[in-house]
Amino acid sequence: MKTELEKNEIATEKELLVKMVISAWDAQQKNADKQLAALSDEQLSAEIAPGANSGIYLFGHLAGVNDALLPLLGFGEKLYPHLEEIFLTNPDKSGFEQPSISELKNYWNEINANLASHFSQISSDEWLTKHTAVSDEDFAKEPHRNKLNVLISRTNHQSYHLGQLSLLAKK
Amino acid sequence: MKTELEKNEIATEKELLVKMVISAWDAQQKNADKQLAALSDEQLSAEIAPGANSGIYLFGHLAGVNDALLPLLGFGEKLYPHLEEIFLTNPDKSGFEQPSISELKNYWNEINANLASHFSQISSDEWLTKHTAVSDEDFAKEPHRNKLNVLISRTNHQSYHLGQLSLLAKK
Repeated sequence: MKTELEKNEIATEKELLVKMVISAWDAQQKNADKQLAALSDEQLSAEIAPGANSGIYLFGHLAGVNDALLPLLGFGEKLYPHLEEIFLTNPDKSGFEQPSISELKNYWNEINANLASHFSQISSDEWLTKHTAVSDEDFAKEPHRNKLNVLISRTNHQSYHLGQLSLLAKK
Repeated sequence: MKTELEKNEIATEKELLVKMVISAWDAQQKNADKQLAALSDEQLSAEIAPGANSGIYLFGHLAGVNDALLPLLGFGEKLYPHLEEIFLTNPDKSGFEQPSISELKNYWNEINANLASHFSQISSDEWLTKHTAVSDEDFAKEPHRNKLNVLISRTNHQSYHLGQLSLLAKK
């Protein structure tokens, strides 16, 4: 039998683990905001390397992926569903009209404020519940397909593209 | 009072959380191996963008960072300490002689096999113990400065540079 103290330690460790993952996300979001604030519109309009994606495309892509977290984590509908076609399901230079950089910045701030507000309200237990793209049956067998795991994956995805956006600072 | 079942659930959840973080690391390592295997020596020798780091420098940088995990996580000494000066404390083109790509690939495989072997042996509880660069006093106040948090941070760091290395595939 575990003592009361040991049980409390376990509960605290679970919360600690969840907080560590959210902190990593927050740190990436801060990095992203810092990078975006430091880039001129001209830099953001450039390609990260010759023939590669433009800064605007990557920015819109990250905004669209964050927006899609809202339904995936069960927080509600996407705020800017038109981002999907322009920045997620189609590559750069597909001919779709892209929002302006200032519009994208507004979307970005709105989406992230919405996510942060939900993140501040849900419990560690809720982070371990299933995301909305997995069935009850599959989740029963694969409990790692939870909301927190989505966040781990999206944090890495954001890092991946921030490494690319960082190249624009030298342009 | 928690029932025995609830206590077991908590213990399982802690292990699940630790496994989720390690799986994210493993997935990045797999991505890295896949990217590196697909790049020719000529591609790896190129700059990721004009005037930016070369593929070799980024590869050596990731190898050096992984090597430094061995002492940081308390697993032992670095295997290739000379990587630090060439790829960590100095920027690309500093004039230090770089290992060949085939040497780097050997280092990379050795370092990662060593890490994987340690990862397979340590318990969830051990992942939550302090890393070696934090004092006992600071750790008592800041329990998030544990080994698992180092891994979360390094996974994101690796993603950041993999996003850059991916640009070489088009060269």
